[in-house]
Amino acid sequence: DPTLKVFTLNSNKELSKEIAQHIGIELGESSVTKFSDGEIQINIEESIRGCEVYVIQSTSDPVNQHLMELLIMIDALKRASAKTINVVMPYYGYARQDRKARAREPITAKLVANLLETAGATRVIAIDLHATQIQGFFDIPVDQLLGVPILANYFANKELDDIVIVSPDHGGVTRARKMADRLKAPIAIIDKRRPRPNVSEVMNIVGNIEGKTAILIDDIIDTAGTITLAANALIENGAKEVYACCTHPVLSGPAMDRIQNSSIKELVVTNTIVLPEEKKIDKVTQLSVAPLLGEAIIRVHEQLSVSKLFD
Amino acid sequence: DPTLKVFTLNSNKELSKEIAQHIGIELGESSVTKFSDGEIQINIEESIRGCEVYVIQSTSDPVNQHLMELLIMIDALKRASAKTINVVMPYYGYARQDRKARAREPITAKLVANLLETAGATRVIAIDLHATQIQGFFDIPVDQLLGVPILANYFANKELDDIVIVSPDHGGVTRARKMADRLKAPIAIIDKRRPRPNVSEVMNIVGNIEGKTAILIDDIIDTAGTITLAANALIENGAKEVYACCTHPVLSGPAMDRIQNSSIKELVVTNTIVLPEEKKIDKVTQLSVAPLLGEAIIRVHEQLSVSKLFD
Ligand SMILES: Nc1ncnc2c1ncn2[C@@H]1O[C@H](COP(=O)(O)O)[C@@H](O)[C@H]1O
Ligand SMILES: Nc1ncnc2c1ncn2[C@@H]1O[C@H](COP(=O)(O)O)[C@@H](O)[C@H]1O
Repeated sequence: DPTLKVFTLNSNKELSKEIAQHIGIELGESSVTKFSDGEIQINIEESIRGCEVYVIQSTSDPVNQHLMELLIMIDALKRASAKTINVVMPYYGYARQDRKARAREPITAKLVANLLETAGATRVIAIDLHATQIQGFFDIPVDQLLGVPILANYFANKELDDIVIVSPDHGGVTRARKMADRLKAPIAIIDKRRPRPNVSEVMNIVGNIEGKTAILIDDIIDTAGTITLAANALIENGAKEVYACCTHPVLSGPAMDRIQNSSIKELVVTNTIVLPEEKKIDKVTQLSVAPLLGEAIIRVHEQLSVSKLFD
Repeated sequence: DPTLKVFTLNSNKELSKEIAQHIGIELGESSVTKFSDGEIQINIEESIRGCEVYVIQSTSDPVNQHLMELLIMIDALKRASAKTINVVMPYYGYARQDRKARAREPITAKLVANLLETAGATRVIAIDLHATQIQGFFDIPVDQLLGVPILANYFANKELDDIVIVSPDHGGVTRARKMADRLKAPIAIIDKRRPRPNVSEVMNIVGNIEGKTAILIDDIIDTAGTITLAANALIENGAKEVYACCTHPVLSGPAMDRIQNSSIKELVVTNTIVLPEEKKIDKVTQLSVAPLLGEAIIRVHEQLSVSKLFD
């Protein structure tokens, strides 16, 4: 059996340690630093010849830095004769640039897929790709894991009464349905529409939320505009209280102020993206994806299906 | 004849304008900004269908940001049906990581070549690649232009007496020879060697510099350690005065302090890399590569050889 090795880069060092602990191995020895002019310098400090290597890196902010660290690491592993190079991307950056919405736009999510393959990745393991189609951007195997079971489990343990799972937009209904199935709850949808051009959007709620505990779910919360407007609309329309959750806490720009000042009682996220201290406010609960990723790595290494992880 | 279009990204906007002026066209309309979370957003604001497109970008600090801008722009141009995508890189970053000097090192200069081709570049035009071998990292045509004629021309106009061209290390002797040919001057070499391990280097000077005006030449000046030690050694060994020049003014970390406090009388560089205000000190003279790149673009577009530019 080829040896399993796990390396971390700079985006998620704590998560990587947790994953290694879960698997019961030490992280591989390497250093990822910068030369004086900002160029990335990578040293792999142990032999990996013939090994199955897993590299853990989210392409979160600073996305271009994190992506280049990953590409250069893959190049180094390839030249050092790794048997397989498995890229574990808890958060896949640039996923929202997944189609030409307008003329002459790039499709950066596809570009990133090509770059990873060109560098030498032989497999990708990711959590909640913004669009499932991104799997098809690759010609190598892609295992997509889901955040929903982790989030649902947390809410199940809270034993909230009379809940309703709410999708903040039309695109997220399937995800809300998955969550609702696990919690045996009904769903509702925030149905935004613009009556006429240049007139502000109307927030209509499809489904019964009156007097209920609403749980908003999304994959990514970035500037938090959508989710906080949705939360306030739910309260205005008679919801008892509003929780929100997502897999990937991008939380950029005005996000923290908006969340702090919104009707959201608690925001539950995972650690696919590291939260700096200033974002660790009382309202925010962070759950770890380390057991999920650790289990996935063990199963892939043992050539078992990862779909078992969603039962 | 397909239309020629020139686009700039964020590394060298002024140089790009100068190049467009030299060619006698307007820069293509585009915007290169960031989303709230730091992801790059590119909009090409005019049709480029069927055009020969030239994109100007140095992969200077912040190198990963500049490289990703370039890759995403190439992707957008490709999807918008450009006929050819010619990447003009006045400075090619990561060029010093061009070989495995130790076990398990990446060869990032080759990785970058692969990434550019994968994105869709059809030609590269660069100035003074740190190693000429980098041309061979590509499977598309690479035109390498030289900084030496521009630098030599500047010193020729100064009409200095009794000059000697000095290479600061063994690797730069060919470049010093080219410069010396143009200025009809002799050469000298700084011959550093370490007598025993863990003993500091000895600076020996090969060639006659006594009473002469020395001109040090290198391709890149980064932290300026090598060049300032060389300058001081030249003065100590009897040179009358010392000038220094290079094509690519990386000038990172302690570079400016070292140059300011060194025996270098004047440092002559080009604008392949933009100098921020704090680096525009009296000692530093910056020459433009715009005429060279403008001429190269015209010649490539007209399917003429660029080697003429070195006569
Ligand atoms: N990093 C980003 N931040 C905000 N919007 C983005 C980002 N990347 C892509 N987009 C835009 O988000 C839209 C896609 O988002 P969605 O409709 O949620 O799939 C497209 O119009 C993209 O131009
Ligand atoms: N950005 C950089 N800054 C400083 N040194 C570098 C950089 N990139 C690569 N190197 C190192 O520089 C050496 C190559 O430089 P040279 O001998 O001048 O070709 C190699 O040992 C590289 O590891």
